[in-house]
Parts: sequence; structure tokens; C-alpha cells
Amino acid sequence: MSDVIDIAPSVAGVRIDLPQPYLLFLGDADDTTYLKTGQGLIDWAPGLCVAEYKCAGAAASLGLPVMRPREAYAAGARALVLAAASIGGAIRPGWIACLIEALEAGLDIVSGAHDRLADDPRLKRVAEAEGRRLIDVRSPPPGLPIATGRRRSGKRLLTVGTDCALGKKYTALALTGTFRTRGLAADFRATGQTGIMIAGSGIPIDAVVSDFVAGAAELLSPDADPAHWDVIEGQGSLFHPSYAGVSLGLLHGSQPDVLVLCHAHGRERIVGLTGYPLPSIGRAIEVTLDQARLTNPRVRCAGVSLNTAGLRAEEAEAAMAALSSEWGMPVADPMRPGAAFDRLVDACLA
Amino acid sequence: MSDVIDIAPSVAGVRIDLPQPYLLFLGDADDTTYLKTGQGLIDWAPGLCVAEYKCAGAAASLGLPVMRPREAYAAGARALVLAAASIGGAIRPGWIACLIEALEAGLDIVSGAHDRLADDPRLKRVAEAEGRRLIDVRSPPPGLPIATGRRRSGKRLLTVGTDCALGKKYTALALTGTFRTRGLAADFRATGQTGIMIAGSGIPIDAVVSDFVAGAAELLSPDADPAHWDVIEGQGSLFHPSYAGVSLGLLHGSQPDVLVLCHAHGRERIVGLTGYPLPSIGRAIEVTLDQARLTNPRVRCAGVSLNTAGLRAEEAEAAMAALSSEWGMPVADPMRPGAAFDRLVDACLA
Repeated sequence: MSDVIDIAPSVAGVRIDLPQPYLLFLGDADDTTYLKTGQGLIDWAPGLCVAEYKCAGAAASLGLPVMRPREAYAAGARALVLAAASIGGAIRPGWIACLIEALEAGLDIVSGAHDRLADDPRLKRVAEAEGRRLIDVRSPPPGLPIATGRRRSGKRLLTVGTDCALGKKYTALALTGTFRTRGLAADFRATGQTGIMIAGSGIPIDAVVSDFVAGAAELLSPDADPAHWDVIEGQGSLFHPSYAGVSLGLLHGSQPDVLVLCHAHGRERIVGLTGYPLPSIGRAIEVTLDQARLTNPRVRCAGVSLNTAGLRAEEAEAAMAALSSEWGMPVADPMRPGAAFDRLVDACLA
Repeated sequence: MSDVIDIAPSVAGVRIDLPQPYLLFLGDADDTTYLKTGQGLIDWAPGLCVAEYKCAGAAASLGLPVMRPREAYAAGARALVLAAASIGGAIRPGWIACLIEALEAGLDIVSGAHDRLADDPRLKRVAEAEGRRLIDVRSPPPGLPIATGRRRSGKRLLTVGTDCALGKKYTALALTGTFRTRGLAADFRATGQTGIMIAGSGIPIDAVVSDFVAGAAELLSPDADPAHWDVIEGQGSLFHPSYAGVSLGLLHGSQPDVLVLCHAHGRERIVGLTGYPLPSIGRAIEVTLDQARLTNPRVRCAGVSLNTAGLRAEEAEAAMAALSSEWGMPVADPMRPGAAFDRLVDACLA
């Protein structure tokens, strides 16, 4: 991997670090359905998105200025990000000429696709000749350690879930932003591909060899000032039969002081599997706290982040209020700022 | 990896499969302290150990006939096993000439060392020229799936632990042997390097990328005859802050019907870490069963396998009896056959 990722080991440990800001490459997408990565960047890191660029004839747009790589470089961009590849997707042959143009314009390339950039011989040759980096954010950095279980200074919050894909990343990002708005020192710690692109650094925790998952989580949120908050992006769910081990390693290595449980309104079963009902909110909190106490006996749950996408505002308010009353804790949708979310933030910081 | 391991995907899935029987290579070891892998093979698979072979001047012996590779091949051996490398260790430069002699004699090479065999250019060249395989049992096979959580036919037993390194492999091997002695169809399912060498197949679960651990465990014990037992080698411990995620993924993918909890007499703290006491037997069973129910609601714990190494026979008997009385379940040391172990086996099969 040393030929692909320029890792600078430091006291803080080994993480992926990305050149910024970005030119977003939309590939040959005809609509924004395939631009989840790009949309996440625009939502959460608009200041990092200089422009968009796409193949001739592609219809999709993220609403950014359209620039070719050389223009984008002149405007400050330092990396082209594959914003079209669905996470886990392929690098299409028709994109290669555009990617080479970016390398020649002075941009590194950042990809969350399953295919590795350096596996394309043309990209590899041009990148070497131009002194550019091909950065696959799905590839964990080398040299990850085994977890030690040693307690670290600083405060940590981890978002956990009743299932996958219901808002753990967005919740962590929204909390980080609000902590900062309130004048606190806080960092978002990314554990997945899109999160790493937004943060500019992180470790793709589900791609780490299992022996090193907790150790990677320890590296991701190192010792810090006692008043500093690391807000860590959760992965998977302890109640998901495919991924619970990933979630547990991340939980143990993160040693969170505070958990926020993420849930999607109306979801009753693990998505994509047969026969796996979601736990109740109470059971999810109880089990997660019990496991978390292994590495931080003082962990507590501040409340629930409820994904109410698709509900009207008054329906969402009612759903949050009902759940809050049922379980006796703050419940808020971070995509709907307001009093409920303020109460959740207050509880995190209490 | 395709140039190193000859994987034959089948209905049963993708596992490492080893050529057998073995010539055990003792390297330049001067005493048996460094021969843990070799000793494990002799203890549990004596029929697979044709002979031993070592560097000129090495003093250690496992008590097997001494043969050079060509003699061993004539005596039936089909692979040379690195029995000297401590698991995770290096392949020493002084061994290469011996390993090349083995390849030229018709033997494949099997290694559990951290160094990859094919990373040595001389070994790689000779292996290719001779049509031999270089098999690193630390390298998981490619193409592992994400777990589905689908229930499988057949019976499954998993050994779990209060800590690492206290007898989960030996317990699984002893139970498999006894099940067979009683006329039952049973297979030992190996999840670690030494276990894989003993069984001749398996998946090194702690080397699997975390997203695929539960899926690898599902592959390892596929659908089987309803009366058939898979006895699965546990890894790590749910109470170990470095490795609990590995243990949970293995637990969920294994979907065990029966657990046997392994514990070491007198051990009170997680070995190698500071500040992590072991759970009580009762708590260990309660937590493990609770987690196991996610993928098999009917899981039960049959009893405790107690490592009493270092105790005199009567002390061991007393320790087992005391624990059995305290927790109301069979407690036995599988290395001490007798009535207590028979009761544990009865409870597994009940």
C-alpha cells in the first residue's frame, strides 16, 4: 500500500489523510441517485467542494460550478473525488481519461470505490510520472496496533444504532457542528468512506482485519485535552448478525463516555435480512451500555437520534415526543434543528 | 493470493485446505519451547506427523523419526510444516535452503508465520518451477461473504472463553474426539493457524477483514445432516478489550446450539493487559448466551472446561468439583479424561 497512500505516522497514530479541497467527479451519472458520496460532501463540507466535473454528455449535477481539472486546480482544488461511485462500486473504464486529465492538472485522486485506483495500469503510470497520489479510502492504513484497553484523556461520544444505514454518520456530524457552535473543542472522527472524505482523515473500520479493529478505534481518538470532544462515527449495530463484531470492536476501542442511539422511525426489522427484528430502544441501550462498560465503566446514554426522513414536520415532532415520553430521555432528529435537538445536545454535554 | 493458495470453491464454501500428511520442520530450534505448533500436531494429529527434519546442528526434537524431505516424501509426506515458527514469527534466512530442498523433493510448504512464504523470491521461484504450493495459513481465503444470518441444519458447538489462551482449541478437539468415540458424526472446525494445520482445513478468523468475520464463520460450518456436530474452535473472549469483536462475529456466524465456557484455574485478570479483571463464570455465561441468542434463540451452555495445567490430580479434582458445585453445572478439564469430562460430554449432547 505504500505506493498508494502517503502515510505520515505521528504521535497521534496512523490515519488516512486527504489533500483538500475537492473537485467532485460525477462520472457519467444521469441523475443524482448515484451521487450519494457527492451529496454528503456538499451537505457536510460545502467549503471543501470547489467545483464539479463530469464525462461529456452526463446529465447529473450537484449544482456546483462546472470546471475542468486545470481550472479547478487554479481555483484551489487539490484532489479529485469520485463522487459518482456508489460506495463499493466499480471504477468505470470510461472515466479513466478524465482521471488522467486530473492527475496531469496536479490533482491527487480520492476514491471510495471497491476497485483500487492503482490496479489500473494507466492511472498508476501517470500518477507515478506526475508525482500524484491515488488514495483509496476503503484501504486501511498499514501498521494498525492491537488494542491495549488503556484509558485515554479527553471526552468521547460514539453514535450507535439499532441497525445499519439510519443516520450514525449524520448524527455525529451534526453533534460535532453544534458542539463547535457552542464554543467547545470537538472533532468528528470518521470510520467510513464518506465520513473520511468529509473529515479529510479517518480509518475505514469495517475494512480493518478483525484483530485490529479495537486498536484502530483507539488510534482514531487519541489522548486529548480533558475538555476536548471526539465525536466518533458509529458503524453497524450490535443487533445486526452480519456486523455486530465490527460494532463491538469499535465500541471497545472508542471507550465512549457518551452514547447516542440512532434509530429510524418505523423501522421494525434489520434491513436486507429475514427474521431479525430490531431491539426495543430500551434493550438496545441496556445491551450497548453493558458492553461499553468493559472499557469505560462510566459510560452513559444521552438520548436517541431518530431518523424521521419522509415524515411531515408535525408528524416528526409527534414521533420524537412519543418516543421521548416512552423512554424518558431526549429524542431528536439532527436534520430538524430546534428545541428537541438542543435538549439532546444538552444531555450529551451534561 | 491466488498464486499462493490453491482454493477450490465448492458448495461447502471457501476454506483453506492442506495437503497431508506432514514432515515437521524444526528449523534451528535448540529446545522444544519454540515448537508449540509441532507439539500441537503431535498431540492432536499424530497420524499426520510422518517425520521431523531440522537444520544441521539444531538440538530440539519432537521424538519423531528424523528424515530428509526426499525420504519423507517416499514415506508418504505431502507437505512440510513450519513447526518451529512461533505463531506470528518470522521465516529465518537460514531455513530457506531446507525449504527449497523440500519443494524439490515434491513437498508443498505450510506456514503459520507472519512472513509470507511467497515474499521470499527464492521460494517463490522454486515453487513455481516445481509446481509446488506455498500455503500461508494466516492468510484467509479470498471471496468470503457477508453473513446472512440464515439458520443452517445440523448441530453446532462453540468453545468460548473468559480470556485468550486458556484451552478453547484443545477443548474443541477433545470434544470432537469423544463425540466420535461415542459413534457420532462430528467435525472439528478450525479458526486459528494451529487448528487449521491439525484439521487440514479451516479459516484463520482473526485475520479476516472485520466486515466478513460472521460470514466466514457461516461458511466454516455449512448446512449438515441434522444429527451431525460441528465443534468450532473459539477465538478470543467477549471480555477481552482487544479481541471481543472477533469473538462476537464468530459467535454470531457460528449460530451455536451449545456453548462450552473455557476458563483457566486461578486466572483473575486478562493476560497482558492492565486493569481488566476476568468476569465470574456466571456473568461470562449470561452475557455470552445473551449475545448468542441473536442468531440462535435456543442456544444453551453445557458447562465449563477448566484448564488445570500445573495442578496435581487431586488439586485439579477439587478445583473442578468446587466450581461445579458453585455454578451448578458440569466442570471438567479435557486434558484429564474421567467421570467429570464424561459428564461434560453428556451435557453437551443432552
